[in-house]
Amino acid sequence: MFYHDNDLQYPVEVEEPDPRFAKMLQEAIGGVEGEMRVCLQYLFQSWGVPDEHEEYRKLLLETATEEIGHIEMLATAVTKNLEGAPTQLKDEMTEDPVINATMSGMMPRQYLSSGLKAMPVDANGNPFNASYVVASGNLAADMYANVMAESTGRLLATRLYEMTDDPGMKDMLAYLIARDTMHQNQFLKAVQSLGDPDDPHDHLPIPDSFPDAKELEEYNYSFLSTMREKADYEAPWTEGMSVDGEGEFSLLHELDLEGGERSVPKANPETHNEVKEKGED
Amino acid sequence: MFYHDNDLQYPVEVEEPDPRFAKMLQEAIGGVEGEMRVCLQYLFQSWGVPDEHEEYRKLLLETATEEIGHIEMLATAVTKNLEGAPTQLKDEMTEDPVINATMSGMMPRQYLSSGLKAMPVDANGNPFNASYVVASGNLAADMYANVMAESTGRLLATRLYEMTDDPGMKDMLAYLIARDTMHQNQFLKAVQSLGDPDDPHDHLPIPDSFPDAKELEEYNYSFLSTMREKADYEAPWTEGMSVDGEGEFSLLHELDLEGGERSVPKANPETHNEVKEKGED
Amino acid sequence: MFYHDNDLQYPVEVEEPDPRFAKMLQEAIGGVEGEMRVCLQYLFQSWGVPDEHEEYRKLLLETATEEIGHIEMLATAVTKNLEGAPTQLKDEMTEDPVINATMSGMMPRQYLSSGLKAMPVDANGNPFNASYVVASGNLAADMYANVMAESTGRLLATRLYEMTDDPGMKDMLAYLIARDTMHQNQFLKAVQSLGDPDDPHDHLPIPDSFPDAKELEEYNYSFLSTMREKADYEAPWTEGMSVDGEGEFSLLHELDLEGGERSVPKANPETHNEVKEKGED
Amino acid sequence: MFYHDNDLQYPVEVEEPDPRFAKMLQEAIGGVEGEMRVCLQYLFQSWGVPDEHEEYRKLLLETATEEIGHIEMLATAVTKNLEGAPTQLKDEMTEDPVINATMSGMMPRQYLSSGLKAMPVDANGNPFNASYVVASGNLAADMYANVMAESTGRLLATRLYEMTDDPGMKDMLAYLIARDTMHQNQFLKAVQSLGDPDDPHDHLPIPDSFPDAKELEEYNYSFLSTMREKADYEAPWTEGMSVDGEGEFSLLHELDLEGGERSVPKANPETHNEVKEKGED
Amino acid sequence: MFYHDNDLQYPVEVEEPDPRFAKMLQEAIGGVEGEMRVCLQYLFQSWGVPDEHEEYRKLLLETATEEIGHIEMLATAVTKNLEGAPTQLKDEMTEDPVINATMSGMMPRQYLSSGLKAMPVDANGNPFNASYVVASGNLAADMYANVMAESTGRLLATRLYEMTDDPGMKDMLAYLIARDTMHQNQFLKAVQSLGDPDDPHDHLPIPDSFPDAKELEEYNYSFLSTMREKADYEAPWTEGMSVDGEGEFSLLHELDLEGGERSVPKANPETHNEVKEKGED
Amino acid sequence: MFYHDNDLQYPVEVEEPDPRFAKMLQEAIGGVEGEMRVCLQYLFQSWGVPDEHEEYRKLLLETATEEIGHIEMLATAVTKNLEGAPTQLKDEMTEDPVINATMSGMMPRQYLSSGLKAMPVDANGNPFNASYVVASGNLAADMYANVMAESTGRLLATRLYEMTDDPGMKDMLAYLIARDTMHQNQFLKAVQSLGDPDDPHDHLPIPDSFPDAKELEEYNYSFLSTMREKADYEAPWTEGMSVDGEGEFSLLHELDLEGGERSVPKANPETHNEVKEKGED
Repeated sequence: MFYHDNDLQYPVEVEEPDPRFAKMLQEAIGGVEGEMRVCLQYLFQSWGVPDEHEEYRKLLLETATEEIGHIEMLATAVTKNLEGAPTQLKDEMTEDPVINATMSGMMPRQYLSSGLKAMPVDANGNPFNASYVVASGNLAADMYANVMAESTGRLLATRLYEMTDDPGMKDMLAYLIARDTMHQNQFLKAVQSLGDPDDPHDHLPIPDSFPDAKELEEYNYSFLSTMREKADYEAPWTEGMSVDGEGEFSLLHELDLEGGERSVPKANPETHNEVKEKGED
Repeated sequence: MFYHDNDLQYPVEVEEPDPRFAKMLQEAIGGVEGEMRVCLQYLFQSWGVPDEHEEYRKLLLETATEEIGHIEMLATAVTKNLEGAPTQLKDEMTEDPVINATMSGMMPRQYLSSGLKAMPVDANGNPFNASYVVASGNLAADMYANVMAESTGRLLATRLYEMTDDPGMKDMLAYLIARDTMHQNQFLKAVQSLGDPDDPHDHLPIPDSFPDAKELEEYNYSFLSTMREKADYEAPWTEGMSVDGEGEFSLLHELDLEGGERSVPKANPETHNEVKEKGED
Repeated sequence: MFYHDNDLQYPVEVEEPDPRFAKMLQEAIGGVEGEMRVCLQYLFQSWGVPDEHEEYRKLLLETATEEIGHIEMLATAVTKNLEGAPTQLKDEMTEDPVINATMSGMMPRQYLSSGLKAMPVDANGNPFNASYVVASGNLAADMYANVMAESTGRLLATRLYEMTDDPGMKDMLAYLIARDTMHQNQFLKAVQSLGDPDDPHDHLPIPDSFPDAKELEEYNYSFLSTMREKADYEAPWTEGMSVDGEGEFSLLHELDLEGGERSVPKANPETHNEVKEKGED
Repeated sequence: MFYHDNDLQYPVEVEEPDPRFAKMLQEAIGGVEGEMRVCLQYLFQSWGVPDEHEEYRKLLLETATEEIGHIEMLATAVTKNLEGAPTQLKDEMTEDPVINATMSGMMPRQYLSSGLKAMPVDANGNPFNASYVVASGNLAADMYANVMAESTGRLLATRLYEMTDDPGMKDMLAYLIARDTMHQNQFLKAVQSLGDPDDPHDHLPIPDSFPDAKELEEYNYSFLSTMREKADYEAPWTEGMSVDGEGEFSLLHELDLEGGERSVPKANPETHNEVKEKGED
Repeated sequence: MFYHDNDLQYPVEVEEPDPRFAKMLQEAIGGVEGEMRVCLQYLFQSWGVPDEHEEYRKLLLETATEEIGHIEMLATAVTKNLEGAPTQLKDEMTEDPVINATMSGMMPRQYLSSGLKAMPVDANGNPFNASYVVASGNLAADMYANVMAESTGRLLATRLYEMTDDPGMKDMLAYLIARDTMHQNQFLKAVQSLGDPDDPHDHLPIPDSFPDAKELEEYNYSFLSTMREKADYEAPWTEGMSVDGEGEFSLLHELDLEGGERSVPKANPETHNEVKEKGED
Repeated sequence: MFYHDNDLQYPVEVEEPDPRFAKMLQEAIGGVEGEMRVCLQYLFQSWGVPDEHEEYRKLLLETATEEIGHIEMLATAVTKNLEGAPTQLKDEMTEDPVINATMSGMMPRQYLSSGLKAMPVDANGNPFNASYVVASGNLAADMYANVMAESTGRLLATRLYEMTDDPGMKDMLAYLIARDTMHQNQFLKAVQSLGDPDDPHDHLPIPDSFPDAKELEEYNYSFLSTMREKADYEAPWTEGMSVDGEGEFSLLHELDLEGGERSVPKANPETHNEVKEKGED
């Protein structure tokens, strides 16, 4: 179960409120790269880890709980950037180009729906949608999902950092960027710690529990070129040892595949797929 | 631009059609772990790679084109599993428990909307939704997104493999599993090939172009424990060298953070956030 | 503005309630082929028709209002099919295969969320979503959107008709099928009535107000073959007069296109698309 | 910021796992009536309450944190109900009607996507979607949103309670039902405590800060009958004092409204709304 | 069934079209606080009310029909605000800051998809989505859902009112605000009229048909404090009689809960949740 | 299966990048009128056409493959329009009204999520959503769906054409407009070629395989007027031969319908639809 106190994890100050930056910050709350996604992702992953892997369950729950506090910081940052935001499209306003551009660049629902507060939406205004929360039940797959989420999350935070020159916002983002550095590292460490501790790739290919013998071995280490015209070439993924250490990369051309025949059966007449009634002229 | 021929990339045969398996296969088409996602993800990533990284652009376009053929194979598999599917809820049917359970376990829209064909939806029946297509503009982030997509994709394919005993379906899935093995390997190889070729983690933390000096160094290699009661412990992510080779892991307690003050300004009266009209009793 | 009375447009009777058919009927309410879509589509189209085309505004508003009554009929049909539906997964139930299959085949939210009533969702359980409501502002485009909506709507109704042997449901569906026959005809008639009354295709290509001279005439009547290997062939769309009467069909091969060069510029460094920091080793 | 410990808020035991009940429980996690919605709703509301109303901010944050623990309990309940769930559609299985109906009634993605774990989706399989999280900035509106959420939430919990006879599940649901009783009461109390403490409706109409004089007083306490044929009748909302104590209910007929003229201007020719090119025949 | 005439319910005039206000008005059409939601909500609620509660069925159908006319008014208002809207991003335009800001602040799809007409979307541009339509089957829950919808709806209308100084728009909004005042009052009156007419809270807790004896009485009137550190305090919801008149509020600390043990079983090996194949080294 | 080469189908040049036009172009990629929709629609339709209609399968696959190349062209156009786009909201910037309006008019996620690249979203920023992909299994219905998609697609392209004065963009759009002309014509030709080649409407009503005798003939060619007050009038759809050649149009008034009785049964007490517990006072 969960507890709270009344502080933010790290200070959130805004020197000069900027309503357009309030819109941009929404991506870090409700976007696919944002904190709601990682928070829910780590919670659901954690709740599913079986007792025997308790170390990973703990790892996930610790960080999930940290992320709730990040959403809180960002929600505070949005509200502070909306302080004093214009809320009128009235005639006299069209004369001030700054107010004008601000009104044009604000997120409409940050005024209309939330009364100048943060919302669970992204910077384009789309509501957060749990279809991008990944909790597959397989720890190795989940750890890569987490590395990926923290990579796009940190990338987003650096882009927001470049966008503003408000010292408070830069400081808050520097904190979040630092946390994402750690989170990338911890989840990469976690994936490396699965399986043989001396082999950082012992978890590959994911899931490694599927018997090798059941794969079609002709196809599992060949890079498939789909060029219309066959041309051989070399790249790190067409030759040499595979990363999982279980095969040798090669180059295969789609043109050389034997392929399969396309055949589609006619459906049941009750589908009314046919254009004409049977027996009708 | 793109071309096609009239063959499937690999044979798709179904010995005993199973309408419920036709529903399950939808996850591999329109699910977050499915082929539409990877196909579109690699296409959009590829189209955004600048000329100077052409090798990666090519890598992505080659595999994106392969994936269109995988959607095609799976769509064919769905249609073949729906051959002869029951389409009636009539009285006499309630007596045959097999047909009964089949009708209950089919996806309604595979009959009602597509006339016993594949659809761009997942196994729960949700339409494919591009919010989970990741193309961030940063190659390292994108490669991890691809490793993650191929990991959950291969995991899904192994689960489908366990679910059926149709030899044709097992053979098709063995092919797709093999391709996912390769794709995991090729994208891991690609991410390792970014930056210093002798350092497989030289691309970390992502994005590595953000100046180290601007991060808050107090926080970027410490694992944050959010336990209500402070307890020290050891794990691979609380001590030792970080994976990016740039720091030393440590353990930090949220309880020891200095934190920031929570403060929320009152919004503009035009928001009508207030309960009572000013001056009204 | 709108009015109502207390009758249904046509009787809705259910002899033997079938909770699984209650699920299937949802497609006709909230599906892309359903009545909510056409109702809203005709309303929004109607509200946008300018005064000078009042005849079409009227056409649309008349039928939109009719469609509200169809949703009402279908909602009644769902509720009646859910009368007496099982709501328990208790132990003793697993012994009756009919109840068992019924519970498995019901839509969970028809019990959990609506208390055995109709919902604004489709048969897969997805909420109605206005992204498929088309009201383009161009009457010809809108009329084709309506013909298409009525075609898939009638197709759906015939599939539902085949699925049941309840006489009440068959009667209600026969009514709805008849109305869709009319609606297809009326919107086709409407599109033919645009432009020259003697030329049923005078509205083509849509929008016909775009000056012919600005199109690239080399490409506007040639069927493009995208086969990997060039092969000439004949079909109704590779030769003869075009349907709009303004060109002659021909066959063109993608292989013979001159094409354009692919080139992608490098993005601003502030995007942090690059893997490494400038000047860092 | 937030903390956690390693216990559940209340015990979650399952005597006889039932994979179909695992599907039903998803509604209480990711449904519009579920715990993710209330949790996020109270968090976002809380984070937006200005300092001067700190008592309400606290109320919301206390309960939001409680709700995270409810999601955790339900996720545990789902996993426990999926223990031993069938994962095969193989031939020999069609002979056991119980397994058969179970496979038909399970949620496909609970196996395929999460490996027999809880997901952030509802019982129809739709991903949680923050569009139903309400945080309007106005405390009175938000409190009603909360009462409503707790009402549909408790209704859902009672329906789940009726559906099962597993003693562990009944006990867990009895706890959640009790909490919803409290939450309904606390939010009703909170809305009554806004404004004059002696007048439980002093916050009405919401928002009460909009000046009465600006409303059209002819219309603000009359019930509008939209019957096609005028018929007078009496109901609690057609006569007597209004609930907000500011008006007298009356009955008005749409037929008696003066109404407004419908008029739609022609759009800019650049919209190509017109069927024919100007000047073309 | 339904009927229409050719008038608007109330006049809709726009003196100075403002394309940015046309965007804002979309929230009142397709937003969660908008008219499409209430219209569909009351329709679906009404269609599900059993014969014995006909008075409420009528209440809902009367107002649902009124709401269709409100969507119509707003759609007209959008079209009128888009009259003369700029549709070009051409070079010469960048010199006029007003046109410039207008183009930036318009909703792209109001030009591109609808040809300068209203759309079934909200002010952020998200399509209307029926997941927020609530029709629970329980009249008391539904009436609170309606009060809540009318509260956020009226709040939205007052915010739109403040945003504009066009006299026509202010007049139309004053009408809609007045109607929302009535609708709040009528649904509150309706909920009070359920159960004992002398006890306005006799319907509580919702659903009141669940036997009190089955709730866990230890938890149903205690406010749960989730503070990390225990601190007693007083608030209207921690002491005194509960609103439903059935209990006494008290304060309980999460820290004092006995809690339950977290335990997660290992899943079936066919899920491939495990990292390594059994027996593999 | 599919192949690619390294050219674009047609040149894509941008003389003066315009970040706001980059936003508008997204509609042609991920919008309901865009290329992702038609591409996936033709692919899924093609994959479902049975062997006996191979000519249509080929038609669809040829054009589907063409459309992938159109998405590619548009993605390139977006990236080129984003070259040099501003990415800062810093103080000094507020002084340049052009940069200011540009920042306000850009799509936030084109910078934040994709690093100045194209995304699979529409111009309002909504992710592409396969719910508008139509593949019904019935060729006639599908061909109308395609005509409609190409009509709204060409309409969109002409609106984009009017919006820009960049010669490269105008040239690219002229190409796409020409292709849409062809696609409208080819799908209309295809629908006319179904059934009797001498009767262009022999496929009507769709599906024509439903036996005429089962329709309610009283209702299938009468236009239903839903006016509150009965008024006869003439229109092309109230008299004369129907388009399918199978009936005679007439005018019918909803007022004259016999209608059906509305009746809603009470639901199972386990739904807790009732306000009060049985036997409780």
